[in-house]
Amino acid sequence: MDSDSAERYAARIASARREMRAHGVDCMLLSVGSDLPYLTGYSAMPLERLTMFVVTEHDATLVVPGLEAPRVARGPFDVEPWGETEDPIELVTRLAGRPTIAAIGDQTWSVFLVQLLARMPATTFLPASVVMSELRVRKSDDEVARLRAAAEAVDRVLGRIPASVRFSGRTERQVSRDIIDMTLEEGHDTAQFWIVASGPNAASPHHEPGERIIEPGDVVIVDFGGKLDGYCSDVSRTFSVGAPSERALEIHAIVAEAQAAGRAAAVVGTACEDVDAACRRVISDAGYGEHFIHRTGHGIGMDGHEDPYLIEGNTRPLEAGMAFSIEPGIYLPGELGVRIEDICVTNEHEAVSLNRADRSLSQVL
Amino acid sequence: MDSDSAERYAARIASARREMRAHGVDCMLLSVGSDLPYLTGYSAMPLERLTMFVVTEHDATLVVPGLEAPRVARGPFDVEPWGETEDPIELVTRLAGRPTIAAIGDQTWSVFLVQLLARMPATTFLPASVVMSELRVRKSDDEVARLRAAAEAVDRVLGRIPASVRFSGRTERQVSRDIIDMTLEEGHDTAQFWIVASGPNAASPHHEPGERIIEPGDVVIVDFGGKLDGYCSDVSRTFSVGAPSERALEIHAIVAEAQAAGRAAAVVGTACEDVDAACRRVISDAGYGEHFIHRTGHGIGMDGHEDPYLIEGNTRPLEAGMAFSIEPGIYLPGELGVRIEDICVTNEHEAVSLNRADRSLSQVL
Repeated sequence: MDSDSAERYAARIASARREMRAHGVDCMLLSVGSDLPYLTGYSAMPLERLTMFVVTEHDATLVVPGLEAPRVARGPFDVEPWGETEDPIELVTRLAGRPTIAAIGDQTWSVFLVQLLARMPATTFLPASVVMSELRVRKSDDEVARLRAAAEAVDRVLGRIPASVRFSGRTERQVSRDIIDMTLEEGHDTAQFWIVASGPNAASPHHEPGERIIEPGDVVIVDFGGKLDGYCSDVSRTFSVGAPSERALEIHAIVAEAQAAGRAAAVVGTACEDVDAACRRVISDAGYGEHFIHRTGHGIGMDGHEDPYLIEGNTRPLEAGMAFSIEPGIYLPGELGVRIEDICVTNEHEAVSLNRADRSLSQVL
Repeated sequence: MDSDSAERYAARIASARREMRAHGVDCMLLSVGSDLPYLTGYSAMPLERLTMFVVTEHDATLVVPGLEAPRVARGPFDVEPWGETEDPIELVTRLAGRPTIAAIGDQTWSVFLVQLLARMPATTFLPASVVMSELRVRKSDDEVARLRAAAEAVDRVLGRIPASVRFSGRTERQVSRDIIDMTLEEGHDTAQFWIVASGPNAASPHHEPGERIIEPGDVVIVDFGGKLDGYCSDVSRTFSVGAPSERALEIHAIVAEAQAAGRAAAVVGTACEDVDAACRRVISDAGYGEHFIHRTGHGIGMDGHEDPYLIEGNTRPLEAGMAFSIEPGIYLPGELGVRIEDICVTNEHEAVSLNRADRSLSQVL
């Protein structure tokens, strides 16, 4: 890697060690997930062959399957490849020493933790987010620029939808394929999810696009995103197939007002749960409180969902540089669903939406 | 779900309970990964909201985020949705009882296991593969049919490559995009990996397709696969851009002979490691033993990599109905790489290759 990258990763590893000391963590063990590329630039393959970054006060060593070692760009850490018939858990245990408290990457496969538990019976394990969230939750200018580039790309996709995607008479799955293609065309490295939820299906927030044929008069939630240059996009808009009904306009207007209230409430110093409450109040006041069945938002960065979560009970105040979704919705079983979602980043004072695509109930064919 | 599906899942859950008893497992906890859809037809979303299937001797309960509950097809198990501000670990702990031994899904995120460890300090955890591998390692006729359909689809992609994909003058990434598109066109639900490793890059078995421009005379490994109807494909062929060199032909012939030797050795009753040895012998005898740097193969089914692994040290004998890759390779750093891979399934006697695409060093433009 170039010297700028090496410097960045060295600084991040130093910050991680500071957080480890603050939490009494003697050793951190990272595998699949974004913490590892955040510290090293290298992503573990999600396979049965163990990749594990072992960070202690004085050493940082990437244990990696031998046949994946050529993929590692050498940086400010050691690399220890292991051979096909060697035992990587043995290697990790040796490098870890005898930690009293170890932090294990949140998404690390349990099959590896179970083996570590057997070899390190005196160690207490914490999730590595205890250490890493603090580093990752405030985005640098470079990270904000990448989140903005990803948001602008999905905004371009949204902008193309009314003119170039036919909904009526096609299945949700077909429409979702168009959206995946456009997401890649607009520069994303991967499309990671693509909800197209039409008519009554839109009442299920995580609906998987299926064989339902979209009809004139349907309200359709489109919620999609992926990764561009290591950072995630995530955006939702709701469309009307043909002219919207009074009912759809009414529900959409409430959600739009709630979403705007959430963006307005997201100022530095406000508790995360208060942003959630600001959205929820609008929807409750309109009589639909019980139909807003999920939290208002989630942080976003290298992971699609990460700290901070905008949810009741999270009293953490917003700080400058935090990035998160604001995505209230109303879900009426058997009838329809509406959701509007932007990714916002706080500057020194307030949240600014990275997504600028039209938030109205746009008509599609 | 229909009654056939309900019956199939009920039978599988009963088999899982038999294996749990055989291993002294009081409770099994499954989350992301294929064990859960194998038993229930439902796949957990890989998110921070916990989905967990809790199986005890008398109960089987799917704990699922409330907003994902509409995605669950009700079957021979209970469903317990949890609300956005509830604690799902509390719910799982209650359903689990006080197990002496619990099995946790291999790919379950460690952040959940860490929380379970804190609430269940007297419980010893094993990986759920101890229970589930025994169920999944012998494929039913229906499963073999699905693996065959997936193999035939990627064979069709391979068949189209020489006439329809230009290699020379294009980047590995561009070629990989073509292969992804064709994999989806040929019926796959997802493409999951797409190695295009050209020239010296082919010496890295898990090379990620990048910006290298492919040149005439390059040898290119293409190794790709995905999922069709819940089951995985995985195939590798090696191509020559223009007429192959003597050297490429020599190395390719050795790998082809090794791969054929592996297929011939894979008869019921043979130890997995002996299939590996059969491939390795051919390559070693030709003087390239140190350049065959990975195991010969891995099982395949709902997961791309699962039991049985064809690797030194695995003395398990092959049984009828096992499905696995046979994929020897030779990797010459700085020069080239060659790999040939088929998915094979054992009938009552021997392994039959599901992939039938041309195994020669085909020329591409």
